[in-house]
Amino acid sequence: MSIKQFTRLIRFIGIDGKIHYGDAILPHNSFDARLSKQARLIKGSVLSGEYTVTDSILDIKKLLSPLSSNEIPTVRCIGLNYLKHAIETNFPIPKYPVLFYKPSTSVGGPIDPIMVPSSCQVPNIPVNSLDYECELVVVIGKKGKNISIANAFNHILGYTVGNDVSHREWQTRTSQFNLGKMYDGWAPIGPTIVNRNEFTPEQVAQLRQKSFVNGEIRQNETTADLIFGVPYIVSFLSQGTTLLPGDLIFMGTPNGVAMGMKPQPKWVNNGDELLMEIEGIGSIINKVTYDALEKSKL
Amino acid sequence: MSIKQFTRLIRFIGIDGKIHYGDAILPHNSFDARLSKQARLIKGSVLSGEYTVTDSILDIKKLLSPLSSNEIPTVRCIGLNYLKHAIETNFPIPKYPVLFYKPSTSVGGPIDPIMVPSSCQVPNIPVNSLDYECELVVVIGKKGKNISIANAFNHILGYTVGNDVSHREWQTRTSQFNLGKMYDGWAPIGPTIVNRNEFTPEQVAQLRQKSFVNGEIRQNETTADLIFGVPYIVSFLSQGTTLLPGDLIFMGTPNGVAMGMKPQPKWVNNGDELLMEIEGIGSIINKVTYDALEKSKL
Repeated sequence: MSIKQFTRLIRFIGIDGKIHYGDAILPHNSFDARLSKQARLIKGSVLSGEYTVTDSILDIKKLLSPLSSNEIPTVRCIGLNYLKHAIETNFPIPKYPVLFYKPSTSVGGPIDPIMVPSSCQVPNIPVNSLDYECELVVVIGKKGKNISIANAFNHILGYTVGNDVSHREWQTRTSQFNLGKMYDGWAPIGPTIVNRNEFTPEQVAQLRQKSFVNGEIRQNETTADLIFGVPYIVSFLSQGTTLLPGDLIFMGTPNGVAMGMKPQPKWVNNGDELLMEIEGIGSIINKVTYDALEKSKL
Repeated sequence: MSIKQFTRLIRFIGIDGKIHYGDAILPHNSFDARLSKQARLIKGSVLSGEYTVTDSILDIKKLLSPLSSNEIPTVRCIGLNYLKHAIETNFPIPKYPVLFYKPSTSVGGPIDPIMVPSSCQVPNIPVNSLDYECELVVVIGKKGKNISIANAFNHILGYTVGNDVSHREWQTRTSQFNLGKMYDGWAPIGPTIVNRNEFTPEQVAQLRQKSFVNGEIRQNETTADLIFGVPYIVSFLSQGTTLLPGDLIFMGTPNGVAMGMKPQPKWVNNGDELLMEIEGIGSIINKVTYDALEKSKL
């Protein structure tokens, strides 16, 4: 056993049928742990800081979200945080970070289906308005409150890719964004949490992120378009507020979402494959799936 | 040891200096467990459903929140859910429930101080706009998804009193309500979770709730003014979304908050005592306390 920090934390079902944490072994010429076939097993708890990356290698059967939903105390999301996205949605440019939340139960894995509940299915709701949002997700690794901007990176465990799946009709039926974003599995993350030490602050401020619907590119922008950057957001959210290990921060999405398209939004349909990718971190691919069994009880 | 359901669940520090769960023994002529001196100890886990109210009686040293924040997966809040309150705030009457969240770290105890962070303190922020919101809080006891209205009460563990402490200036600086509501301890709850079986559905729909600032009455209304009632909200929030044991739902606040006062809002100041009371459940009393040590690091 060797004591060292993880590089790409994954959680997975191994060929032994059990759930493990591991450090993904990347295939040649790829930064994407979604394509990894094997991992070095991790013993102990990464969130507690007491863990070891072992030399035991195990084959991966299925990738899960790198943290389970019950390891994630709070999922914070920053809205309208990319300049061109704020413009495409016709919202004013925010002077302060626009905070909303998703429940931890909305977290899903990098290859899980996105199950669409009855209340969001056409024709149960006459307006299709299902949308994707490729996001850089910051994972908190160290408890803290009133964190300074200068010290913010020390509280970050690493970064992952997220999709803030959103049903625009429900989202805009009230003043608060939360209704169309709360469903089980509507915050898929992964494939890995890349250790913060893999990136310089300058690199974090220019990560390229892309999204594809059935292979068609939709978003293609870098974090240089962020209005409020990563260290500012960590510091801002921690004012008077304790951030806990496992907390996620969805940093917002760049331009190119369906709702911003002119003249017609290209909404997402049942069966569509949503691929979200961030350079140096990896990609998640989730299939939109109308849940046939799930009937509204309302 | 006798096996029976709790009536008034409390969490407290006993005279032995340890943290316990108990069934509060009420003083004569009071429904308010905040005044309880003793409790019957509870063994096991109420949230798992496997527990026993024992015959062992222990003296109470200090009441805590009836669940600890790490037992609470998600805190959901319904905004503008009392007709007269929606009117006093000049918002449109909601056609759908207005959902927002507070992080679990905002949960505090029934007699804990409300610590005001630097960023909300006058003169650090020139506008004092600190406010209280007396709320009925529903505690989920049984995991569920797509819960029908008819079955909603079966998923409820019980009811408690909450204060959705709100800084209106921060709350209204962005389109989302969350900024002025997120701080540690800004969701005090308690003194007890009263078992749902203590109330008929008709009683839940006409609970009187009052709030007082330094003894001056501010809110005095019943749940009959709710736009969306308890079973509807539980069903609505569970559509496509798993509700978990320990989840809290703040049902909204009636008219009488400081921001609604004409001609001048009576904002809450450092040192004020906020007492929130719901008939048949109990009261919480929390002192507003500017945190002198806590400096903004932003």
